[in-house]
Amino acid sequence: MTRMLILGGTGETGSWFARYFKDCGLDVAVWGPSGKTELAARMGVRYAHDMINDARISDIVLLSVPIAKTIEVIRQVAPCMRQGSLLMDVTSLKSEPMKAMIRHAPEGVEIIGTHPMFGPTMPSLKGQTMILTPAAGRSEKWLPKIRSLLEAGGARIEVLNPEEHDEIMAVVQALTHFAYIGIGATLQALDFDVEKSRKFMSPVYEIMIDFVGRILDQSPELYASIQQNPKATLVRQTFIAECMRLSEKADSGNLEGFERIMREAAKHYGETHQALERSDRLINGRIKEKED
Amino acid sequence: MTRMLILGGTGETGSWFARYFKDCGLDVAVWGPSGKTELAARMGVRYAHDMINDARISDIVLLSVPIAKTIEVIRQVAPCMRQGSLLMDVTSLKSEPMKAMIRHAPEGVEIIGTHPMFGPTMPSLKGQTMILTPAAGRSEKWLPKIRSLLEAGGARIEVLNPEEHDEIMAVVQALTHFAYIGIGATLQALDFDVEKSRKFMSPVYEIMIDFVGRILDQSPELYASIQQNPKATLVRQTFIAECMRLSEKADSGNLEGFERIMREAAKHYGETHQALERSDRLINGRIKEKED
Repeated sequence: MTRMLILGGTGETGSWFARYFKDCGLDVAVWGPSGKTELAARMGVRYAHDMINDARISDIVLLSVPIAKTIEVIRQVAPCMRQGSLLMDVTSLKSEPMKAMIRHAPEGVEIIGTHPMFGPTMPSLKGQTMILTPAAGRSEKWLPKIRSLLEAGGARIEVLNPEEHDEIMAVVQALTHFAYIGIGATLQALDFDVEKSRKFMSPVYEIMIDFVGRILDQSPELYASIQQNPKATLVRQTFIAECMRLSEKADSGNLEGFERIMREAAKHYGETHQALERSDRLINGRIKEKED
Repeated sequence: MTRMLILGGTGETGSWFARYFKDCGLDVAVWGPSGKTELAARMGVRYAHDMINDARISDIVLLSVPIAKTIEVIRQVAPCMRQGSLLMDVTSLKSEPMKAMIRHAPEGVEIIGTHPMFGPTMPSLKGQTMILTPAAGRSEKWLPKIRSLLEAGGARIEVLNPEEHDEIMAVVQALTHFAYIGIGATLQALDFDVEKSRKFMSPVYEIMIDFVGRILDQSPELYASIQQNPKATLVRQTFIAECMRLSEKADSGNLEGFERIMREAAKHYGETHQALERSDRLINGRIKEKED
């Protein structure tokens, strides 16, 4: 039976994966910094009181600790892992954690970075994307096994190298979150009454304002750390510059200039009409839900 | 039988309302600047070849022309309307059009501004919000009739004064659109491959990127004119200032500062957890749709 130790396995993401891999038939143990042994018991998995000792005897060590702690935990745990075992993480950034795992794990230990593109509120892996960043030359034995364990639950697997991953995520995650958090901060700065505004919603606003709330409801530490993506600085700066360019056109009544930016953005975007149709289905689904 | 003339009734929004009011049993005629008589025939309504003459004999004149043209059309048509009739518009801004309608229509003509909080891709009025801005002292006869005509189709009616309307819409519409258009312009400036990114989507990104495409697919003139809301300048400036404040924290690695802004925004927002749950349902609905 494959032994898996999940460090941070009592957190939201860690316990989500503990349940998942237990259901896959793995022998799962969890460790967390605040010693929630009762949570382990409730999940029906073992609590690893001695993290280092458990890492020594595990086939797979999965790191699910806050990004800010990841490097430190890798430094402590990776050197103790045994030959033929696998070190994984679920961190939202990949370049730095991969470098640290490759550096601190003994040569005979394989390394696969992962980034689940969903949060622990998702009921299952079905239709969810997981990005894998396997270490070249150090993942051949475990990669097919991990892939099939995840695909068994319905996950879509995508393989990237760590630098490509961070570059894409600087937009997919960092920019998306940044814009929504920026709107949330604006609502506060304007002292705008969000509850009252719900009476005057358009479908686009209704969904946007829920996503602002969704992000503000979750861990500020996670969202702040995602902005630490080394490629995100340029993306944020570009976003602010483009907003200033648009605002300048609008402020000076240069409607043609504003429209030109929109047309060029639409041309670059590509299939805008399919996006309109998908969002129409989303909006109509919500209207039906309200009627039920 | 109530006679209604829709100016701009051959456009997307105008023809949506032409169909709606025809189905309500009104005698609908449409006029449009490009003389699409065959569209009128297809809808089964009359085409008004002489806009001014038709305005003279109509019980209701509904303006559905681009915002930039609204004032000009009001100036031409409103003075010709007969006693006891009703002048309406469907413009996304309310202060300026209301002032013009009140000024140019004869005293015995009633005035009700409207703002449908949905676009012409919605299949029906069911669950959609319409904001009415009736002119005080000049809407008593027609307001109950218009309200019941719209409620019969399932619309939610909200009444505001024109200034309140513009203040709320500076956030609900102008800020929402502005942020999404800003993201669209950023994707272009970064030469980011939108199609490729769909392989690496999180549910939050997937929905966000569709809404960016949705807005870029529609009339740039409409979106540019919505930014001309007199209250939108301050909102855009506040948004850019908040984004710069957030970006500064992220750039300098001041995670605590970033987290503090998020926590304060969450506190101001209020019920973030309900927003998370609603957005979870939306995401799960989309996952189910893909499975079907």
